[in-house]
Amino acid sequence: MLKEILDEVRRKAPLVHNMTNYVTINDCANITLASGASPIMAEAKEEVEEIVSLADGLNLNTGMLTKEKLEAMMLAGKKANTLGKPVILDPVGAGASSFRKHAIEQLLSAVHFTVIRGNYSEMKALGCEAAEEKGVDTTKQVDRENCGKAVDFARSLSSKTGAVIVISGAMDIVADEGKAYCVHNGSAMMSKVSGTGCMLSSLIAAYAAACSDQPFLAALSAVCAMGISGEIAETKLKENEGNASFRMYLIDAIYRLNGEIAEKGAKYELYKGNDACLCG
Amino acid sequence: MLKEILDEVRRKAPLVHNMTNYVTINDCANITLASGASPIMAEAKEEVEEIVSLADGLNLNTGMLTKEKLEAMMLAGKKANTLGKPVILDPVGAGASSFRKHAIEQLLSAVHFTVIRGNYSEMKALGCEAAEEKGVDTTKQVDRENCGKAVDFARSLSSKTGAVIVISGAMDIVADEGKAYCVHNGSAMMSKVSGTGCMLSSLIAAYAAACSDQPFLAALSAVCAMGISGEIAETKLKENEGNASFRMYLIDAIYRLNGEIAEKGAKYELYKGNDACLCG
Amino acid sequence: MLKEILDEVRRKAPLVHNMTNYVTINDCANITLASGASPIMAEAKEEVEEIVSLADGLNLNTGMLTKEKLEAMMLAGKKANTLGKPVILDPVGAGASSFRKHAIEQLLSAVHFTVIRGNYSEMKALGCEAAEEKGVDTTKQVDRENCGKAVDFARSLSSKTGAVIVISGAMDIVADEGKAYCVHNGSAMMSKVSGTGCMLSSLIAAYAAACSDQPFLAALSAVCAMGISGEIAETKLKENEGNASFRMYLIDAIYRLNGEIAEKGAKYELYKGNDACLCG
Repeated sequence: MLKEILDEVRRKAPLVHNMTNYVTINDCANITLASGASPIMAEAKEEVEEIVSLADGLNLNTGMLTKEKLEAMMLAGKKANTLGKPVILDPVGAGASSFRKHAIEQLLSAVHFTVIRGNYSEMKALGCEAAEEKGVDTTKQVDRENCGKAVDFARSLSSKTGAVIVISGAMDIVADEGKAYCVHNGSAMMSKVSGTGCMLSSLIAAYAAACSDQPFLAALSAVCAMGISGEIAETKLKENEGNASFRMYLIDAIYRLNGEIAEKGAKYELYKGNDACLCG
Repeated sequence: MLKEILDEVRRKAPLVHNMTNYVTINDCANITLASGASPIMAEAKEEVEEIVSLADGLNLNTGMLTKEKLEAMMLAGKKANTLGKPVILDPVGAGASSFRKHAIEQLLSAVHFTVIRGNYSEMKALGCEAAEEKGVDTTKQVDRENCGKAVDFARSLSSKTGAVIVISGAMDIVADEGKAYCVHNGSAMMSKVSGTGCMLSSLIAAYAAACSDQPFLAALSAVCAMGISGEIAETKLKENEGNASFRMYLIDAIYRLNGEIAEKGAKYELYKGNDACLCG
Repeated sequence: MLKEILDEVRRKAPLVHNMTNYVTINDCANITLASGASPIMAEAKEEVEEIVSLADGLNLNTGMLTKEKLEAMMLAGKKANTLGKPVILDPVGAGASSFRKHAIEQLLSAVHFTVIRGNYSEMKALGCEAAEEKGVDTTKQVDRENCGKAVDFARSLSSKTGAVIVISGAMDIVADEGKAYCVHNGSAMMSKVSGTGCMLSSLIAAYAAACSDQPFLAALSAVCAMGISGEIAETKLKENEGNASFRMYLIDAIYRLNGEIAEKGAKYELYKGNDACLCG
């Protein structure tokens, strides 16, 4: 599965329109290139509809959101829907302010998203559960204990939004209404680099843009690819190196990733209920 | 001293709200993570008061300032003051334009800053002395010759603003009304990487957020930590490497820094008057 | 030639005002520093005229353009013209939207540019030829087949705009009304790093700011320097490394570049008509 998706990204080299925050925008561009796709960034409301028309997919990231950017995102998202192009939502900081909460509600009500990816806290804020989030980073993650609960939540959110749901963290969940996978790839170092979540969303957008008829597989493949690359980056990290080197190794690993490495390294399993999912 | 502060940052893992320029925003985020703290970036006026309420400290950097951002900074700064959270000012380009000069005056009159950090030219522009600055970078630095004059200036600026004053350069000064330290750590390569000043301000904010009752020690420790990390980065730099590698080594060094390395490497001394301060 | 230009940049250390997109702004700042120049970034319409007055040159990059930024660019560009300072245009995404097309037309009609640099598609969109561009990246490049046509086009664009024209790609063209050079330096990896085009424009701005009486030589030297650095970066790249490492090696190479390496590595030739130009 992974091999087909990865090969397709490099074969089609889709153009992906990213509207994202300025903290990690460069990493999003370079990881898009590393995957074999091409990034285009534009956010003036005067042009986003034309830009997204040129592109094969759209990624909306709400980090550092402003009113102007939200307006442009609404235009771009609706246009992408009209043209049948995949749209990814990364609801950064969903529960951090009422401005961001309402902005995301607006996006969710006007735009149909193909995939929504966030950490557990963000996704819960989005799912209208009590927001218990401390900004954009969080230690509350999906683990063996709360795995079943998280899968149930992901499925219900998918049912409500029609999107493939990706909850990322130490363990990742990829779910739609009917099924859920648990992914066990990754490295703890990923939480020490700003924007690994944003980069994953850009990667999902690249994969989904290349394989628009298989959004679930695209999302699952991107999650595995990112996690495997995190593991590769960790093995390269020397004793006196830190998060800056890790960031470089991570993007490098996506660049060098191929179907063979991906198939061999991927650790994912179909979730089969609370009893069976002694994940990991 | 340094050990206690550094350990406290990693123990508390404070959340730091950074409102900063887009040139170096990613480095500011990653150095915050490297220190053990977590960054959150937000600048929409609709949400900054809520965001800063979630955070343990605030860092305002005037690089690439706009009217909208200034307005949001005013809101965030005042809110942080009300909540008793430390606020750091990095007056980037203070003397470069009248817009920036007036903006910084507005910030200084409405917000109480815990620490203000800039290079000598910026601080002088801020102190209403004749601005002789050539933009944001400058060769006019504190050295053995002008050290006494710089200390006097820093103390009077501290007296006027109530803030701990950090003047950074080849030699750094950390001062309040009653005392001043000279710090001799650092590497000339730091001036060849965009944003080492911005990164230091983010680091001060992280340290001050974790140790809000000791802003002077937090600032002094951050200045030493940054300088020591510059020295470590310089030792790692190979003959065919340049400022891009140095940047990575610098953030890596902050990531690996611990109390033992910091205590051993710190070169700071209490300033005891013109005669005694044959600094360095 | 190259040696004189490179030495002059390090000797004069010009200050360069960059108004550029947020995707690659940090790389533009660091490559400016690597070249020996200093970057200053500012884009508030309230201050750009003062900032450009402090600077020795101006670089306008239309990536992620907004209406506000266009307005500020117009002010800065006109002021730079009045003061006789070199102004560089990087028409990112020229053909991607009518907003960007019209914005660039406005800039071209109000500001005289010293150098204009883009890829072939962007330059064609700018030259009012049929825009066949797919966003900002393109596979349509100048090569041995279309070299003569590209040179003719560059010359006529130079005649129309009064600017030195740089068309960059696998083969680069540097032309004015009277002459054209083909440059054969570079690495295919450069297209896998976001912003190598933007970085080249910043480099041209740094060189032209230092050598404002020789804009053609400055542009040609910067194109060679960038290509040579790409080659050096490629030789350093190990088997398990990717575009993130390459990016670092590229900026490092500019940092370490000197006149000797540049003179030895530069592969450029005067274009002498279709028959003679069996370039490469």
